Amino acid sequence: MNIDTRIILVNTTLPANIGSAARAMKTMGLTELVLVAPKLFPHFDASALASGASSVLTNARVVDTLEQAIADCQLVFGASARSRTIGLPQVDARTAGMAAYAQQQANAKVAFVFGREDRGLSNEELQLCHSHVFIPTDSEYGVLNVAAAVQVIAYEVRMAHLQQQGATENTMPVQLVPWDEELVSSEDMAQFYAHWQQTLEAVDFLDPDNPRQIMTRLKRLFGRTRLDRPEYNLLRGFCKRVLAMANGQNQRSM
Amino acid sequence: MNIDTRIILVNTTLPANIGSAARAMKTMGLTELVLVAPKLFPHFDASALASGASSVLTNARVVDTLEQAIADCQLVFGASARSRTIGLPQVDARTAGMAAYAQQQANAKVAFVFGREDRGLSNEELQLCHSHVFIPTDSEYGVLNVAAAVQVIAYEVRMAHLQQQGATENTMPVQLVPWDEELVSSEDMAQFYAHWQQTLEAVDFLDPDNPRQIMTRLKRLFGRTRLDRPEYNLLRGFCKRVLAMANGQNQRSM
Repeated sequence: MNIDTRIILVNTTLPANIGSAARAMKTMGLTELVLVAPKLFPHFDASALASGASSVLTNARVVDTLEQAIADCQLVFGASARSRTIGLPQVDARTAGMAAYAQQQANAKVAFVFGREDRGLSNEELQLCHSHVFIPTDSEYGVLNVAAAVQVIAYEVRMAHLQQQGATENTMPVQLVPWDEELVSSEDMAQFYAHWQQTLEAVDFLDPDNPRQIMTRLKRLFGRTRLDRPEYNLLRGFCKRVLAMANGQNQRSM
Repeated sequence: MNIDTRIILVNTTLPANIGSAARAMKTMGLTELVLVAPKLFPHFDASALASGASSVLTNARVVDTLEQAIADCQLVFGASARSRTIGLPQVDARTAGMAAYAQQQANAKVAFVFGREDRGLSNEELQLCHSHVFIPTDSEYGVLNVAAAVQVIAYEVRMAHLQQQGATENTMPVQLVPWDEELVSSEDMAQFYAHWQQTLEAVDFLDPDNPRQIMTRLKRLFGRTRLDRPEYNLLRGFCKRVLAMANGQNQRSM
């Protein structure tokens, strides 16, 4: 899924950061990179850090000013630390990701702008943006590396896309993972517990004062686990083996 | 806000990645780093890339094995690519972040484990984890740098904390119910598996053609279940009983 969100890096000093940002973008399906007056580009470090995302660097556009980079955009987010004296509307990364998705559905071109390693974006540059986006960092130390910031923003843009796409099919993607083996039925489990009880009795492992306590615990345990077929067969095979041994021993001691 | 989630890096080759991971952690309020057999540490590159997060490196613990790193943990997530042939439950980063929050509210120690730059985690290492966590990457190029992966996970853990704190009323604390019994640690589970293996051998229940297959299945089963203390004691008591019987029988047949 190619996501049509532009990433703009302004005046980046280290080519390694450009490469890492390109990689971060591509892992999330973003491919459009614009570099505003980078100090060194192209450069070996950028290519090395881009790893499998060299196509993003190859296709990157280099321009002189931020105005040029955002000329065709309808929605521009400027990355900034959380509070600025000159306030523009500030949204967090998650909200911005969802806004980017919604705007792109309306065919708007969306860009995220990231500033210099040491000083971020200037006030003039921030004023060219429609909105400021912040990543909710710790108050004690909040300085993300520029490529790490690109990673988080690109991740949120992608998550917004995935969630909206999932939502169209009426799915609840949380926690229900596809399993690679058949899950057993409640009927299977009834036999399973009967088999265990028989086994526990055979090896004298039921508490005489409270014989049902142990079965209750086992039911709680395996009930929340949901056994698949191989696990089920394994545990029943084990019970069978223990039972056979216990019966053999009982015969011998008779 | 200091977030009590442990980050574990296994066999990291480049010290720069350790430094970048430390920085990523600290921006999100995570400070507890454990390094399993790093190639080079301490190292100048790690300190340089950590930037303002040098305290995370200073306090990092270096151990020899993943078992040591997770010994006191109740919930361990292993970072992995999306699909593996031997599947453990897989959750995405957002769900894992929420689970980490919920578990920590119940005083469980939670860790996220990240593998080598080139090969990630081994199957054995993944089996030590209760759950696998993936970052929903693009199908065309899904390889995040390890520090970038730490950044996304730490971000989601932080977001889960912030959201729960922000929404003090009327919240749905996500699927994980508080448990009424102490959950056992990874160290407990290592002893548990050793005990089971001994028991299975004593009753001749290991497949001679593939002796590790059964243990792999059991680890997958109990790994996703997460045993509480009474269940743990029950199953160990049962193993003890079966073992005693098997040994008694063996003596008798001698």
